[in-house]
Amino acid sequence: MIEALQPIGHLVVVSPNEPQSGMSHAITVNVPLRMEKIEEKENFDFYVVSGTPVDCVKLANNQLFREHKPDLLVSGINHGANSSSSIVYSGTMAAAIEGCLYEIPAIGFSLLDFSKHPDFSASSHYIRMIVNNVLDQGLQIGTCLNVNIPKLPFDEIKGIRICRQNKGVWREEFDKRLDPNNREYYWLTGEFYNLEPEANDTDEWALHHHYISIVPVQIDLTAYESVERLKKWKWGNK
Amino acid sequence: MIEALQPIGHLVVVSPNEPQSGMSHAITVNVPLRMEKIEEKENFDFYVVSGTPVDCVKLANNQLFREHKPDLLVSGINHGANSSSSIVYSGTMAAAIEGCLYEIPAIGFSLLDFSKHPDFSASSHYIRMIVNNVLDQGLQIGTCLNVNIPKLPFDEIKGIRICRQNKGVWREEFDKRLDPNNREYYWLTGEFYNLEPEANDTDEWALHHHYISIVPVQIDLTAYESVERLKKWKWGNK
Repeated sequence: MIEALQPIGHLVVVSPNEPQSGMSHAITVNVPLRMEKIEEKENFDFYVVSGTPVDCVKLANNQLFREHKPDLLVSGINHGANSSSSIVYSGTMAAAIEGCLYEIPAIGFSLLDFSKHPDFSASSHYIRMIVNNVLDQGLQIGTCLNVNIPKLPFDEIKGIRICRQNKGVWREEFDKRLDPNNREYYWLTGEFYNLEPEANDTDEWALHHHYISIVPVQIDLTAYESVERLKKWKWGNK
Repeated sequence: MIEALQPIGHLVVVSPNEPQSGMSHAITVNVPLRMEKIEEKENFDFYVVSGTPVDCVKLANNQLFREHKPDLLVSGINHGANSSSSIVYSGTMAAAIEGCLYEIPAIGFSLLDFSKHPDFSASSHYIRMIVNNVLDQGLQIGTCLNVNIPKLPFDEIKGIRICRQNKGVWREEFDKRLDPNNREYYWLTGEFYNLEPEANDTDEWALHHHYISIVPVQIDLTAYESVERLKKWKWGNK
């Protein structure tokens, strides 16, 4: 991500100091946080924080960007998909959503590759294209972008699709084991299950068909259709 | 919550074994989980889990409700508001949203009272009313309820309002201190800032005006209006 964006502008990198898989929008409230500057160059500052992805955004906003907001917040690249309902578990996307709450244009990037040394060449190209587009055109207040990139060489990626969030769930299977003291413990495992594999306007469809998916994401969770329905129920109001 | 719901049906309580403030939709992926049954009565089972609120829902679904789903998932009572954008940080609401992903009718309850021994008498009354309504009428697939209860005696609560999620943010101020080794550390503090105090259809308005707020919440985060806007940008597609 740093290599892809260094040609574009001044970067301030604020990174958790430990892996944060599945941290979602968690914040640290019971222990204090540390933030340390570990690198400083002309166009590049690098900080590490002893907290979650959202802690990083909050600390950066409050301590590093007091006088003026950044032009853009980018989060990731996450290793592994944050498409469909996986977005709710994602610390990468939570950091983008946190930026969005503070009216900073924000993008979360995920690459569908869990390997230790993935091929980022296609990602770099498309990250720059998407970032330049957002810097040029802006995003609507209260929305950010969820970008997922298939695990494919540059030549095999067909392009970009603007999508809606696919309906799908993780079907969990906990792996139940016995420890040396004969006490049970559980490892979370699971498989993603697409509830609408035929729909061709979803992020899952795009990724399966070799496109990069972009879903614009909003912070207003209200189910407006249900508001009217629920108003008709009996609530015994005084 | 247990006392309020015991008259209504068979309860299976699955609770984290530690406070989980600000855990949002975090899941535990790097360490195994423990689940222990600590109480069993005719109409009541109580388990504790060494994980997050969402871990509790996943383990319960997979280990305790393999054959048939529960009729209802209730989460809370959280001590403190989960109204407006605070919902994104809330483990209470994440557990409800997780149930919703698995098509279980789900409600998260929060009481605007941080004291150690709050007065739950009004909460009990309204929890039963809301739960009975949901059991009678059902919720639409993909939606759950975010219920917030003001800190007021029963007589002063005016009733229930169906609302939309208020636009608001936490204005963070990190409290920067020095440890005995002269190293800086930060405590997260903040104040909620309402961006639309005049709107009278929001959960914040309802709570300030002595109503219980109910916001129906959806799991589809797609910003549909932005989908059309973004499709018009230049993406250099092949």
